[in-house]
Amino acid sequence: MTSLSSVAQIDKPRLIERLQALGRIGRDAAGALTRLALTDDDKAGRELLVSWLRAAGLTVTIDAIGNIFGCWGEINDQPPIMIGSHIDTVINAGIYDGCYGVLAALAVIEALEQRGTQPGRPVILAAFTNEEGVRYQPDMMGSLVYAGGYSLESALSAVGSDGSILHDELARIGYAGGIAPGAVRPVCYLELHIEQGPVLEAERCTIGAVDSIQGISWQRLNITGAANHAGTTPISMRRDAGLAAARVITFLRDDAVASQGTTVATVGTICFEPDAINIIPSRAVCTVDLRDPDEQRLQAAEQRLSRFLAELAADENVEIEVERLVRFEPVTFDQDLVSRIESAAKTRGYTCRRMTSGAGHDAQMMARICPAAMIFVPSGEGISHNPLEHTDEADLLAGANVLLDVVAGLLA
Amino acid sequence: MTSLSSVAQIDKPRLIERLQALGRIGRDAAGALTRLALTDDDKAGRELLVSWLRAAGLTVTIDAIGNIFGCWGEINDQPPIMIGSHIDTVINAGIYDGCYGVLAALAVIEALEQRGTQPGRPVILAAFTNEEGVRYQPDMMGSLVYAGGYSLESALSAVGSDGSILHDELARIGYAGGIAPGAVRPVCYLELHIEQGPVLEAERCTIGAVDSIQGISWQRLNITGAANHAGTTPISMRRDAGLAAARVITFLRDDAVASQGTTVATVGTICFEPDAINIIPSRAVCTVDLRDPDEQRLQAAEQRLSRFLAELAADENVEIEVERLVRFEPVTFDQDLVSRIESAAKTRGYTCRRMTSGAGHDAQMMARICPAAMIFVPSGEGISHNPLEHTDEADLLAGANVLLDVVAGLLA
Repeated sequence: MTSLSSVAQIDKPRLIERLQALGRIGRDAAGALTRLALTDDDKAGRELLVSWLRAAGLTVTIDAIGNIFGCWGEINDQPPIMIGSHIDTVINAGIYDGCYGVLAALAVIEALEQRGTQPGRPVILAAFTNEEGVRYQPDMMGSLVYAGGYSLESALSAVGSDGSILHDELARIGYAGGIAPGAVRPVCYLELHIEQGPVLEAERCTIGAVDSIQGISWQRLNITGAANHAGTTPISMRRDAGLAAARVITFLRDDAVASQGTTVATVGTICFEPDAINIIPSRAVCTVDLRDPDEQRLQAAEQRLSRFLAELAADENVEIEVERLVRFEPVTFDQDLVSRIESAAKTRGYTCRRMTSGAGHDAQMMARICPAAMIFVPSGEGISHNPLEHTDEADLLAGANVLLDVVAGLLA
Repeated sequence: MTSLSSVAQIDKPRLIERLQALGRIGRDAAGALTRLALTDDDKAGRELLVSWLRAAGLTVTIDAIGNIFGCWGEINDQPPIMIGSHIDTVINAGIYDGCYGVLAALAVIEALEQRGTQPGRPVILAAFTNEEGVRYQPDMMGSLVYAGGYSLESALSAVGSDGSILHDELARIGYAGGIAPGAVRPVCYLELHIEQGPVLEAERCTIGAVDSIQGISWQRLNITGAANHAGTTPISMRRDAGLAAARVITFLRDDAVASQGTTVATVGTICFEPDAINIIPSRAVCTVDLRDPDEQRLQAAEQRLSRFLAELAADENVEIEVERLVRFEPVTFDQDLVSRIESAAKTRGYTCRRMTSGAGHDAQMMARICPAAMIFVPSGEGISHNPLEHTDEADLLAGANVLLDVVAGLLA
């Protein structure tokens, strides 16, 4: 290090301009933003990013799952620091989710470079493929493959919601790189991200030092009763699949409330068959999203649900099939990195709290292979995956400053 | 009367054959039965019915809403007895709903005719247009127009689920008759029908003497909360429209149970928006079907729901709009006719119980203009509006015998 990190400066106007420029790519006629992984719009977004990386003097490489890396500094015998996120979006998205972490990482490298920092190890910016998982399952795919949690072959053969094969689309847009994913194991991974929840704003806190990611349990329930006439079937003779689904929803809420804020439960999808006003539902299909930062508690919540379903099936004379869709154990981030984030925030004078991420992020996959942590900044009204997604410019700068200071400290 | 009614005999094989023959009209390639009102299939069904009416020597007339009448006996100064039901079906129907009442009415007239009965007043068989209401709203349309409860002009201008205009379809199939609906006011109306519910079978009872029809209250609830991330939004900050809908469903069940069997409540349709596994529903739309044979109790049930919705909206921080879809007051049938049905059943040695109809029927419209009642026979497993709809031949005969004896008694 030839200069003090504290004098390196994030170029805030450029960071904001780039966020807006990237956010203009993938707009439809009505102005809605959608840049699904490996579409033409994703290609255009990638090319804009790569042009900025090259202009900043970074060495750009692409791996076989399409992850984009921008390397700053000479490759030596020291494993690199990796910082980044993703630039694919959901349907009708905001401009911050993922893109903020990637473009702030670029701003951090530029700030260090501009102050003449000579890093003792490389700093690699990463933009991981298909974090959102809208077009291809599973989500967080690029980082999951990078961390060895999912085979490259399986990922390349994924069939999209539009019937496309991931491998074909990756080649078509020119991002099927030659490097094996995971070839470089970083010394640590840091990801800056909008919170996507209301906690920081509600607590008037600028920085979240994310020490864990909730475990996620997704299940689909198929409840089968018997269709019958709504007017002529006495209550005692009903096998009402819809009522059973409603009892699951209210049970989950009551159970989550009883957990005193550690477990959250959501039923986001439901459908009834035959779905007629005067027919008792013969079938109800709904999903259950259960999350908890602690694996033991998450398992306990799953078990309470399972016992409830058994009782419910008997009480309401319905059959309930449970299909497991997704299960990720909670991730505990590296305590040294989390402490460095807290210290950096305090030194800058930002309010800061430790917190759990309720959403999944590439950092949870990278935590499988190296120390990792995340920095959160507030989301206006907690809104995300929505055009109304917003973070104040001062908060965007604050998050980038904390990332800058932590990286500078690690390089020192 | 020149012969005793007790020696008149229903031709059971012919009744069964006709039910099956009519049930073969409107089958699709997969064998499913659908004869929606005023379609080509309905036309074919009508023409088969009319051919049987003419063969039986009845005078066939069609009114301006397409109701079919077959008149037996000389028109004189005595108002006629009317017996019948409807022959249109729901989608993927059984063969008994409606058709049984019409064809049994024909069998009753044939039995009386064959024994040489000379009626002192006409007996008119009625097959009312569009009882099911699948293609055109409202249901029970032909009898409702006949009874003066809905204007002919409104009915003729009804727009179908397929975009058709009722008037055009009625003319196209050749059933736009010249007689004004309701021109003849009968001395009474009797309708024989399958129960479409499980009560008679469960109680091993052959005949239901239907003394009332439940009042029906249909409402649609539009519940608006706020979409948010399932992982990052604390339970205390949620505005979960789906949870609110679930609480409505469980409230209605608990309220119906507390009514001790008089009120029934069903939520048959529901949808969530945005309907994603990891997003708290911002909107839930569901329907409520409330029924009770007593108007005061039905109003009380509606009021309890209304109060619950107000509390729920406050508790869950959601908005709830209530849209009234359908409201029919309960109908009390003519006690003399109901007693005649009970007596006829007892004389024949059939088990019999008084009961309420949970479903709507043409008889409830006809009750507006003349004494009316219904006779029910058991539905296997209570199933109706379903290809599995079934009533044993012995029960079909029993119902027709009771109708025969009541009509003969009224003619005596």
